[in-house]
Amino acid sequence: MTYWIAADWGTTTLRITRMDGTRALETRESDQGMNTLTREQFEPALLAMAGDWIDGPTQVIACGMVGARQGWAEAAYRSLPCTPLDSGLTKVTTQDARLDVSIVPGVRQLKPHPDVMRGEETQIAGILAKLPEFEGVACLPGTHTKWAHLSAGEIVSFRTVMTGELFATLTGQTVLRHSLSGDGWDEDAFLAAVSDALSRPETLIAKMFELRAADLLHGQDAAIGRGILSGLLIGAELAATKPWWMGRDIVITGSDKTTRAYAAALTSQGLNPKILPARDMTLAGLTAAKGT
Amino acid sequence: MTYWIAADWGTTTLRITRMDGTRALETRESDQGMNTLTREQFEPALLAMAGDWIDGPTQVIACGMVGARQGWAEAAYRSLPCTPLDSGLTKVTTQDARLDVSIVPGVRQLKPHPDVMRGEETQIAGILAKLPEFEGVACLPGTHTKWAHLSAGEIVSFRTVMTGELFATLTGQTVLRHSLSGDGWDEDAFLAAVSDALSRPETLIAKMFELRAADLLHGQDAAIGRGILSGLLIGAELAATKPWWMGRDIVITGSDKTTRAYAAALTSQGLNPKILPARDMTLAGLTAAKGT
Repeated sequence: MTYWIAADWGTTTLRITRMDGTRALETRESDQGMNTLTREQFEPALLAMAGDWIDGPTQVIACGMVGARQGWAEAAYRSLPCTPLDSGLTKVTTQDARLDVSIVPGVRQLKPHPDVMRGEETQIAGILAKLPEFEGVACLPGTHTKWAHLSAGEIVSFRTVMTGELFATLTGQTVLRHSLSGDGWDEDAFLAAVSDALSRPETLIAKMFELRAADLLHGQDAAIGRGILSGLLIGAELAATKPWWMGRDIVITGSDKTTRAYAAALTSQGLNPKILPARDMTLAGLTAAKGT
Repeated sequence: MTYWIAADWGTTTLRITRMDGTRALETRESDQGMNTLTREQFEPALLAMAGDWIDGPTQVIACGMVGARQGWAEAAYRSLPCTPLDSGLTKVTTQDARLDVSIVPGVRQLKPHPDVMRGEETQIAGILAKLPEFEGVACLPGTHTKWAHLSAGEIVSFRTVMTGELFATLTGQTVLRHSLSGDGWDEDAFLAAVSDALSRPETLIAKMFELRAADLLHGQDAAIGRGILSGLLIGAELAATKPWWMGRDIVITGSDKTTRAYAAALTSQGLNPKILPARDMTLAGLTAAKGT
């Protein structure tokens, strides 16, 4: 059997790809993420979406929050330092005998600070499959951005910064929502705020309300406000993660828009990040996991 | 007529007090804040709550978001520097001829950064009514904490930090809600985090996700997590507002619990803040406004 299914099963999204060996044939996506499903609902959700791809014994390799305690089956964290895929996969017991489902375990860090990842280890495996000799830092921007120090094929340490969730929450749930609506984006305001936050990161928390006041007093455009807030948050993130990226080679792996913002911010600091698309890295990682 | 009504009418709460001259007789509170009312609903809301206090011509002095553009009547901002109550009150036209309603205008700052307040200027008037010679900084903690530099009876400059809203949003709307539920509070964790954030404010944004990871990996108690998050935010706020409070006399005027947290944080930095209760300062400020 050369056909198999690669499943990127996160908190809010399920994305499955029909694979022929290392080649992606078709991808489907739904909002049946981990947080919408009880344990018994994972298998029906998968069958409902991939049913016509399954005409015999079918291997499924999944990564992400599907392996959390609240997921389909808990895939216990491995501890650092480790390669992104060592110690193998966690098998899932299924009702449908045609399914052969395995989940990639997440990774945990106990020191110097507690941290966890689920799904990003698979993207890192994809990065190392594409760039086997890579030494440096992988930046995986998203809801919870990960900065992972990679050396000799291993994840040495990492740091999670919830920048994406902060931006979404501040623009959607706080008083700033009145002044930062829409999806406009001002690049100059963004880069100026990155620089501002990097040089004076201690002012971040005080700068937020300025966005509301600048709208009330000067009618500041929402696109400028959104650029400033994003720049302040990413600039503060770069200030906090300086020990990770300073003087190192950097790969960024994320969605198009977010990746562009991080790349622009890092480039403005004199760095030259390499960009690898997130979905390709996930598939490359799941392909590598299938071979383990 | 010696009886009048003091109204503290904010975004989410309406609190009215029947006054006999400078003496408070009775206070009533409802959730009919500015953001639940259209312009036409303010007068009926007031009459429904205070009806039995109104047996003839009755003066009502109100402060807070009731004077915003979306409020009962817009009370245009005054610009700094100004005394908290100069330039008088904004009269409101009412249907009920017995009512004589006035709103205290808010204050705006154009430089060095844009900022606005509505309601806090009345508390500051109350502080200056109690301590006419006060020179220093008023810290008014709350959803949007204000730091106001007071000199010669005037507000010279101020800074709003949305610390209270950040804490509520992070503990209620983000992934941290799974690890920071309840209303527990660990004072030691709080003070350690204040110190941590003050000495390394650039790490704030990266420390947030640690609270989730520490729960997942070590089962960290929610009360400790809440103490740490509050300490990180207030510590970051103190780092950002250092030019305001450093080496100055400080008055804190807020609710009991929040005031205690700020007082503990400032005391841990060798300061000796004076505490004045928020509701008393609001009434003292509205009483001063009545006399203008």
